[in-house]
Amino acid sequence: MICNKFLNASFLGAYGENNELFERLLNEFVRDHVYWRRNFHPLDRPPISSSAANEPEYLESVARMKDELHRLTARLKSSVPTYNPRYIGHMFSDLLLPGLLAQLITTLYNPNNISEDTAPATVDMELAAGDQLATMFGFATTKGQTPCAFGHITSGGTVANYEGLWLMQAVRYLPLAIQQASIETGIEVLAPWGEPLAKADSFQVVNLPADDILTMNDQVSHLAEPDKSRLIEAIQLNRYEHLGARQFFDKHTEIANGILIVPKNAHYSWAKAMRFMGLGEDNLWQVSCDTSMKLDINELELMLNAAQHQNRPVIGVIAVLGTTEFGTVDPVDGIVALREERRKIGQSFAIHVDAAWGGYLTSMFRAKDGSLLSHDEVKQECDHFPCDQMYGAFAALSKVDSITVDPHKLGFIPFGTGAFVVRDNRVSRLVMQKAAYIFGGEPDADDFRQLGQFIVEGSKPGAAAAAAFVTHNVLPLNADNFGRLCKLTVRNTELFYDKLMILRDKLASSVELRIPIVPESNLICIAFNPVNNHDIKVMNRFNQAFYEYIRPDLDTAMQANEFFGSSTILHTKKLTKSAFETLCGDIGVEPKQLQHSTTKGFEGQADGIFLIRHTLMNPWLSDEKNGDTYLDMYCAFIERTIAKMLKERSTDTW
Amino acid sequence: MICNKFLNASFLGAYGENNELFERLLNEFVRDHVYWRRNFHPLDRPPISSSAANEPEYLESVARMKDELHRLTARLKSSVPTYNPRYIGHMFSDLLLPGLLAQLITTLYNPNNISEDTAPATVDMELAAGDQLATMFGFATTKGQTPCAFGHITSGGTVANYEGLWLMQAVRYLPLAIQQASIETGIEVLAPWGEPLAKADSFQVVNLPADDILTMNDQVSHLAEPDKSRLIEAIQLNRYEHLGARQFFDKHTEIANGILIVPKNAHYSWAKAMRFMGLGEDNLWQVSCDTSMKLDINELELMLNAAQHQNRPVIGVIAVLGTTEFGTVDPVDGIVALREERRKIGQSFAIHVDAAWGGYLTSMFRAKDGSLLSHDEVKQECDHFPCDQMYGAFAALSKVDSITVDPHKLGFIPFGTGAFVVRDNRVSRLVMQKAAYIFGGEPDADDFRQLGQFIVEGSKPGAAAAAAFVTHNVLPLNADNFGRLCKLTVRNTELFYDKLMILRDKLASSVELRIPIVPESNLICIAFNPVNNHDIKVMNRFNQAFYEYIRPDLDTAMQANEFFGSSTILHTKKLTKSAFETLCGDIGVEPKQLQHSTTKGFEGQADGIFLIRHTLMNPWLSDEKNGDTYLDMYCAFIERTIAKMLKERSTDTW
Repeated sequence: MICNKFLNASFLGAYGENNELFERLLNEFVRDHVYWRRNFHPLDRPPISSSAANEPEYLESVARMKDELHRLTARLKSSVPTYNPRYIGHMFSDLLLPGLLAQLITTLYNPNNISEDTAPATVDMELAAGDQLATMFGFATTKGQTPCAFGHITSGGTVANYEGLWLMQAVRYLPLAIQQASIETGIEVLAPWGEPLAKADSFQVVNLPADDILTMNDQVSHLAEPDKSRLIEAIQLNRYEHLGARQFFDKHTEIANGILIVPKNAHYSWAKAMRFMGLGEDNLWQVSCDTSMKLDINELELMLNAAQHQNRPVIGVIAVLGTTEFGTVDPVDGIVALREERRKIGQSFAIHVDAAWGGYLTSMFRAKDGSLLSHDEVKQECDHFPCDQMYGAFAALSKVDSITVDPHKLGFIPFGTGAFVVRDNRVSRLVMQKAAYIFGGEPDADDFRQLGQFIVEGSKPGAAAAAAFVTHNVLPLNADNFGRLCKLTVRNTELFYDKLMILRDKLASSVELRIPIVPESNLICIAFNPVNNHDIKVMNRFNQAFYEYIRPDLDTAMQANEFFGSSTILHTKKLTKSAFETLCGDIGVEPKQLQHSTTKGFEGQADGIFLIRHTLMNPWLSDEKNGDTYLDMYCAFIERTIAKMLKERSTDTW
Repeated sequence: MICNKFLNASFLGAYGENNELFERLLNEFVRDHVYWRRNFHPLDRPPISSSAANEPEYLESVARMKDELHRLTARLKSSVPTYNPRYIGHMFSDLLLPGLLAQLITTLYNPNNISEDTAPATVDMELAAGDQLATMFGFATTKGQTPCAFGHITSGGTVANYEGLWLMQAVRYLPLAIQQASIETGIEVLAPWGEPLAKADSFQVVNLPADDILTMNDQVSHLAEPDKSRLIEAIQLNRYEHLGARQFFDKHTEIANGILIVPKNAHYSWAKAMRFMGLGEDNLWQVSCDTSMKLDINELELMLNAAQHQNRPVIGVIAVLGTTEFGTVDPVDGIVALREERRKIGQSFAIHVDAAWGGYLTSMFRAKDGSLLSHDEVKQECDHFPCDQMYGAFAALSKVDSITVDPHKLGFIPFGTGAFVVRDNRVSRLVMQKAAYIFGGEPDADDFRQLGQFIVEGSKPGAAAAAAFVTHNVLPLNADNFGRLCKLTVRNTELFYDKLMILRDKLASSVELRIPIVPESNLICIAFNPVNNHDIKVMNRFNQAFYEYIRPDLDTAMQANEFFGSSTILHTKKLTKSAFETLCGDIGVEPKQLQHSTTKGFEGQADGIFLIRHTLMNPWLSDEKNGDTYLDMYCAFIERTIAKMLKERSTDTW
């Protein structure tokens, strides 16, 4: 078992065990803040006089505030107890104390990370936290060299995904604008193969690799004046961002509509992004998943072929690193290799990894010096993790274009903190929007401190950046530090799986316990099927009934629950045909029973499998010092609950 | 003078005067949280044993955390002292204690407001805070009635603006999709004038008023099956969001490109929105401002005419309520009246108010019962505020379609909290995105608790919602409560203006003190011009030199500053020609000196006026109990500094 002792001081704890430590540190830094205030022009007489506190109006005001805070906390007590090892539901857990404290303390200073003028300390911390994440993923961060990564905090993973799509699109369509500008101005720009861009085939131009595009763009800025300014202005006027989708393509009718390719296991924010950003959900091509709920690489290749035949540029391919539903990891390495192949036949695209969930798992793969650990080294202390595919995927991260990662998920810090990292910061410079507040020239190439100009959002809390930065400093993002915490969550999942296998045998006479997708990281989904039942609808209703015992019931005190889980639905339409057939066998229903729906729209009970879903983030799940571990207790709870359910109703009435 | 005594208990204070109160309440609720943890399965043995705290590994871990927190706070001490009355720069001030405490405490519970399942308490608070804001603006919030508003928290004003644009566009283009679907399916839908929509002129269809569009959409859901489902599906397939901009307009080539109209005083996030959301900055039409830096209504009308002639739908018109640079307020009432006029000639558009800054000022206009106060009632205790135009603008807010407002600005709560309010929640329902996690039908019409389905963002902190909600409860959004705080900021600005007029006379022999835009709320911009100078470049350099004395210098201790201000540039291209000429007279330069640039791109020194900008949020600026007020002290500082500057260098060397 992985020892979790090193984390004893890092969480407030299920019982609030570290309450004194937490309170002591919090008070120390709250007071430090107060006395900092007193060191700015100490001779000014305090605006609020000492006698104010005795006045009726003051007392009334305090009473009102207290009443409202009492009402607030009274209601907060219906919160789901996500800090407790009995909570194994959504992507929630207790919070890492360093990050929590950093966030609370920084909030008192209230920096606004839109620019360094309003956040002299925390903008630098945000960029440093971005560098820490970039380094973990294997991106270069040396200023003055190319490529140099740029990472920053977002309000969440959804916004980071929007930013990824925005940048992929900006790069993909830039060469068409350069070509058009070159034609209009008569100023020559050379294509990467050395011939005038103006004469190049536009489908070839829209399929240039990102590196070539950025190099070509750099060449423009090396032109002599006045050509340089004329060409730059013409490019701006011809860009997608300036013209908008409609006018841009009115100039490029020979190019068919661009597409974004995502696996069917991807988060719904991608569909939302397509709608929200005017690209249209119809241009979101979805790749089916294989039996392990990973993007099916063969189907991806077929799609790329189709796009090529239809003259459609591929804005990007999304790979999911840690799906919301199963924690599975798409074959990033396979997609990277496929891109190499496709380049040879004149097709190029960006790769963005949605690692909102799994991004921090990368810390397990990094040595202290930043190098990639070998497969065997990563595997230490685990039975199965990481499988070959998973190791390959993480090892290939350094080759993708951009990554979404959520510190507020597996970074164990409070909600409101996502992150976006791009491998080459020149890409972010492409979408720079200048505020009208200041005279002055362009910033240095690697200076992103006027953050608001380069990102999707505007005003933003420096406290979130401080939380991520301090967390990464206390537990650096390598296998010896943060990686140990991640490893614990993965190892607990392996242990849980083993215990479930034992439980399966115990239950065999009454229900079949199925794990349709073998867990690869720290999520696990379960389904129960009463023996001799082959009706998927009955099975779904049975599992929904079980879920009632572990879901947060908003009308009942949370204390009434023994455990908390979450649920999900495995929609058959997400799978390839062969994966679907395998799945049917795995869960014990006949293929004709479970419909392999490929239609869009709402799904009925017969084309999805309702699953009990568990996220194993809490570090104390397999703690043995109290006798049975929480995982054992939960298995016993399952056994008890199933027995009760079957006693109350016979199988055929579900 | 407005008494600020009622606020004595509401801020931590410039001197940390309320440190004991703050610490006491914080500790009370931190402990309350800890002991709440102990009430969930109290018989479980604590995972972290009591002896853990004595182990070397624990002590080492605590030391590491403390070291990092020390490093954090050491760096935070270079923060700009925004809590102090000597800070009159950007839109920052000390924070309201109820909101600050609510945010800190709720962070411990870490709710995720993406849905009520992960935030049973705070999703309701978020919706309630949205209702409080909606009520302040005059929107109806009675569930089950139409229209019923929907308001929610965003991470900031930029995202709220994106959401506004998204919704305006969704409504504007919906009828074309309904028309197309009606044609394709042969299922009849009637236009508001009673004839079949299928036969209507498409430019007439794209110009329907929002209310008619929503009513027409409701009619579809009242059709009998199977027509209803067939038509709804066909509509979905024909919508802008599904097809994307390009394909949608390939089906509607007769409709020219839609535009968004913003005043030139608008925040740069609108330009960013156009680029980011694929509409193109070229389709952002910018209306010049008049001499008071308000949208020029005549020019707006000319633009609307031009759009009509060019067959271009107007997605929306943005009015700014409290510009970032001058705090001025666009003629919302004039725009609303103009919309009525335009409807008669078959043109319709949404009105979105960007009240990121000025939204909370509306609290001054509301009686406790929610009714609108008379102009005289609002004017009480002020000399000039609100001017006729301003009163008209605020009174008309109830008639617009949607509003952006930032609790983290004039709501005095920490950064990371914006808000978006839409007058008719059916609009938000149009962009609903269903997550794939749950079986089940549609939510009730007024139920937005699965928040993530209706908004731009995804996972989001419940702590931000709690901060806004508790603040609104302690200081309700009416003239007697929150409005008094707002009034204080406005009244302080009037007092400051009067003091500056006295200072102007004092300085008259050496510099001219100019206030090019008469302040209307709580921002004021100043410029100095050495006497006999008529060169705008000299004037700008002089003001930049003055600004050096009041800007945060990141390389020097903040304590070295006596006061803090911010700066901005009044770009002449933002003004109408006549406003520009008036301005030239006002600041004492010849029109030929100051260029009335109308080109886009970068501006030089000769087409902008560098201004010293002050935001007067701090409630203690005109506090007299300590002898001179901070405003007097700042005026004296100006006098001293100008004298020093002129002593060091003669005018002609600037």
